[in-house]
Amino acid sequence: MSPAQTERLDRQFAFLNEADRLKSVLRATTLCDGSRRENSGEHSWHLALYALALADHAGPDVSIDRVIRMLILHDLVEIDVGDVPIHSANGQAHASAATQEAEQRAADRIFGLLPADLAAEFRALWDEFEAAETPDAVFAKSLDRVQPVMANLASGGGTWATYNVTFDQLETRVGSKIARGAPRIWDWVKVKARPWFG
Amino acid sequence: MSPAQTERLDRQFAFLNEADRLKSVLRATTLCDGSRRENSGEHSWHLALYALALADHAGPDVSIDRVIRMLILHDLVEIDVGDVPIHSANGQAHASAATQEAEQRAADRIFGLLPADLAAEFRALWDEFEAAETPDAVFAKSLDRVQPVMANLASGGGTWATYNVTFDQLETRVGSKIARGAPRIWDWVKVKARPWFG
Repeated sequence: MSPAQTERLDRQFAFLNEADRLKSVLRATTLCDGSRRENSGEHSWHLALYALALADHAGPDVSIDRVIRMLILHDLVEIDVGDVPIHSANGQAHASAATQEAEQRAADRIFGLLPADLAAEFRALWDEFEAAETPDAVFAKSLDRVQPVMANLASGGGTWATYNVTFDQLETRVGSKIARGAPRIWDWVKVKARPWFG
Repeated sequence: MSPAQTERLDRQFAFLNEADRLKSVLRATTLCDGSRRENSGEHSWHLALYALALADHAGPDVSIDRVIRMLILHDLVEIDVGDVPIHSANGQAHASAATQEAEQRAADRIFGLLPADLAAEFRALWDEFEAAETPDAVFAKSLDRVQPVMANLASGGGTWATYNVTFDQLETRVGSKIARGAPRIWDWVKVKARPWFG
């Protein structure tokens, strides 16, 4: 193996070992059985499975394989920034300039561990996900919003109770984003969620 | 939404909620920092990331997107069967007829939660992974073998210490399978692993 090949593998595995830390980033949401908080590594796996199992709800211009790649990468910045719960700070924390800037710095550092070609490829996918404009990104964001709703329903309320969320807030912060990429999924979930709010 | 559409979504989400339980299946391997045992959900995410970051080590006839799909699905049977550590029972437990039969029954039950078309699609991918004959499955198996080696190296020995593994056993049980799908990766990892065994 040439020194260049060895150095490339060094960088690939430096990134993969650093990524292991995402398994220690805790989200506000619990597992479906309520036994503990979910971490962002297992959450990312679950979302990739969501994309596979709900592919028929994506529009005809969506590539499920690109959606899966985005979802595998989408939370890596949380290694530096932590998870920012959607309902925290009255629903405003996630969009704050400070959070956005911190996530950009984290993306620079973490993707920068990789060889340059892979760093550019992964960063472009993450930027596309964050911008939420392309059909692939919009569908990926829908799945990222619906999975915590399912966990809350299964665990008896979860973060809705923690943050005193109303059904109107759920529709604004979550439902509108699910409906944007996967309208039939929100139609289905809404019927399940509505009774919880009394 | 028609009753048939509602029933399809009922089945898709029954499967996705059941899959949540994979986050509670513990493996023998720890996280890289040694802080706790890894679960099979976050392990599956990490392997999908391995496939993305190490794609250039796959042969020209490998589809990385199919490899990722296999890796997302590959451990779901552990919800019923549990994880069978590669070095347990002197390296024999994983291939036992009892384990194989239990995994087949688990696949019947878990994939059977899905609508029939998705059940058939996912089962075919899982069967292909288990058979380890196609280029996609062989590469996926290589990644499944190399990730615990990296965790053991990072955490100071991990399951090699637990099961008193020798370097020869590592080469037979693990190295040969990494080398089959990704020979340069085993060349690189071997150099890192050899000194641990003294």
